[in-house]
Amino acid sequence: MKIVMEEAPALKDAIEAIVNLVEEGVFEIGEEGVKLKAMDPSQISMISFSMPKKIFREYSAGEQKRIGLDISKFSKMLARGVSGESVEMGVEEGRLILTFKGGKKKRTFRLPLLDLGEGLEREPKIEYKNSVVINADALREVLKDAKLVSTHITLIADEKKFRVEIKGDDGEISEEFEKDGVALKELKVGAPAKATYPLSYMEDMIKAAKSETDITIYLENDRPLKMEYAVAGAEAKYYLAPRIESA
Amino acid sequence: MKIVMEEAPALKDAIEAIVNLVEEGVFEIGEEGVKLKAMDPSQISMISFSMPKKIFREYSAGEQKRIGLDISKFSKMLARGVSGESVEMGVEEGRLILTFKGGKKKRTFRLPLLDLGEGLEREPKIEYKNSVVINADALREVLKDAKLVSTHITLIADEKKFRVEIKGDDGEISEEFEKDGVALKELKVGAPAKATYPLSYMEDMIKAAKSETDITIYLENDRPLKMEYAVAGAEAKYYLAPRIESA
Amino acid sequence: MKIVMEEAPALKDAIEAIVNLVEEGVFEIGEEGVKLKAMDPSQISMISFSMPKKIFREYSAGEQKRIGLDISKFSKMLARGVSGESVEMGVEEGRLILTFKGGKKKRTFRLPLLDLGEGLEREPKIEYKNSVVINADALREVLKDAKLVSTHITLIADEKKFRVEIKGDDGEISEEFEKDGVALKELKVGAPAKATYPLSYMEDMIKAAKSETDITIYLENDRPLKMEYAVAGAEAKYYLAPRIESA
Repeated sequence: MKIVMEEAPALKDAIEAIVNLVEEGVFEIGEEGVKLKAMDPSQISMISFSMPKKIFREYSAGEQKRIGLDISKFSKMLARGVSGESVEMGVEEGRLILTFKGGKKKRTFRLPLLDLGEGLEREPKIEYKNSVVINADALREVLKDAKLVSTHITLIADEKKFRVEIKGDDGEISEEFEKDGVALKELKVGAPAKATYPLSYMEDMIKAAKSETDITIYLENDRPLKMEYAVAGAEAKYYLAPRIESA
Repeated sequence: MKIVMEEAPALKDAIEAIVNLVEEGVFEIGEEGVKLKAMDPSQISMISFSMPKKIFREYSAGEQKRIGLDISKFSKMLARGVSGESVEMGVEEGRLILTFKGGKKKRTFRLPLLDLGEGLEREPKIEYKNSVVINADALREVLKDAKLVSTHITLIADEKKFRVEIKGDDGEISEEFEKDGVALKELKVGAPAKATYPLSYMEDMIKAAKSETDITIYLENDRPLKMEYAVAGAEAKYYLAPRIESA
Repeated sequence: MKIVMEEAPALKDAIEAIVNLVEEGVFEIGEEGVKLKAMDPSQISMISFSMPKKIFREYSAGEQKRIGLDISKFSKMLARGVSGESVEMGVEEGRLILTFKGGKKKRTFRLPLLDLGEGLEREPKIEYKNSVVINADALREVLKDAKLVSTHITLIADEKKFRVEIKGDDGEISEEFEKDGVALKELKVGAPAKATYPLSYMEDMIKAAKSETDITIYLENDRPLKMEYAVAGAEAKYYLAPRIESA
């Protein structure tokens, strides 16, 4: 395996989409690119992450198809790359070899591979009839509002508006977005939907999204939410289980 | 009651003058504006705060004349307002309704009212013969110096100078200000005065003052200090009990 | 003794070179300038610090030749000086008197002198055959890399390269610098050398170095490292004991 990213910080930005949810994970190094599917330890959320071959300067998959890593340590090593440096990834003697190059300086980081067993995660098969495209920062602000009064947030999509409701002991909040091309970019509603999700997971899921990123949220009544966005050429896709109110 | 502030952050800035000293308080919604008088829980300091009707875009007092609030939660909700948004306050079903509006987005926060009983705070009636007008940042720097060696600060005003003295186990500090139009703007002394006050309260009292604000301090020998300044159109007035050295 | 520094923050910057390693110390006030030699409490590192007379606006040594101080408190007082203020140091009644002046404001800080006994620290006498001149920020980045996997760092100088190696349970790192005039300014090797040092001390030793400072490191096999740099006209010289691997 030899995979080279022209700008080291871009790889760090992409991996950021995983590190907030899972501590360990298996990267699958395929002919078409790198993939990772993982559930967070509490099994409330799932990530399906992929980096297509084309975002790399050099890409050859090699023999070892599965690379188990401590994602947190991997991310911290990547974070040491600076603009102007390339980063090359290889595997040697049971270790991931990360080589940063730039100018007359060369840095090599070695990270032990983990034996994590087969990944059996399957993505939920849900036909979503509703989707919302919202600006990443606008969504982040909604979550900050929500945290003032609760740990959960209710998302509601109907034909005209995207709404959120948050209820807690310290107060209540309701917010309405009409399609404005700035915060709410798109609103497609097949059948109005409403569901409640844990705030902290939503925060972690959008942490890697850059300010002006479009976030697509798919929503069905009391079903898992699906969220998608692009970061540094990679695609991050998340599923998040709803909280079902006991009747 | 319907009260609208054109720029939401201005209301947050004004309320900042209260939140550092008191956790709960009763706003009186009068014909001429909003007032609040409260003592801090330790009864060492008192605030008398007022926002005149004219700083609001819309102002109608309504039936409910007294609004008891958790000031800290109120302030955190106000802090969610951004430049370009207006904020409207109303009362409904025992709750304060805060509505932020700007563009095609509308956010409504509801905060339960508190039943806090009659406010009986009375402002001390002291005829001050001495006053000092000092720049807010200059005063902040004095307090930072003072914290290095003590928890109290002695203020001294005489005909020529405004002085502070701080004594502690870790050292001593003395500072002198002559009227210079920059740090010390004004010095009126009827009878030289000297008194010692707790630093942490003074810090809290000036926290809401913007950098270039003029702070007026009224001083008498071993009597409560009075401090006044304006913030976002509101007037903040504080009293602070002196520490009397036992003879 | 009367010593005046034109710009108070410069004195703070210089003292910064000491405060990170030693808590108390004795300044020797000589005819040619101010010196301090001290070991850190764990006796793993040593500093030899000097400020030549010429960096001061006024300098007269006076009778008291040795000034024992709590360096941390001294540094915090100096940190209160601002650009545009001068600072004067004198001694009075067993206390160091620091006077900041600027405009119509005068601030005097008094710090008790400590009776710290005779300083007997002697600098190691080592003839170094190897030296490396490296940019301060580049060295700081090396130490940040190293912290990811270990508490120690191995420095290696040979004819062509300056290298570092770091090994720990969480991975391994190796870095190579060729002379490039940017990160590695100079490399003089008489006999290739290699030794291992504790990271946290190296961090503390370079903390006072400004971004573009040249740091000179002298290196011998398993001998103490010597490090030198200039800050605000003062010269900071450090020694650091190596970790010797048991055979």
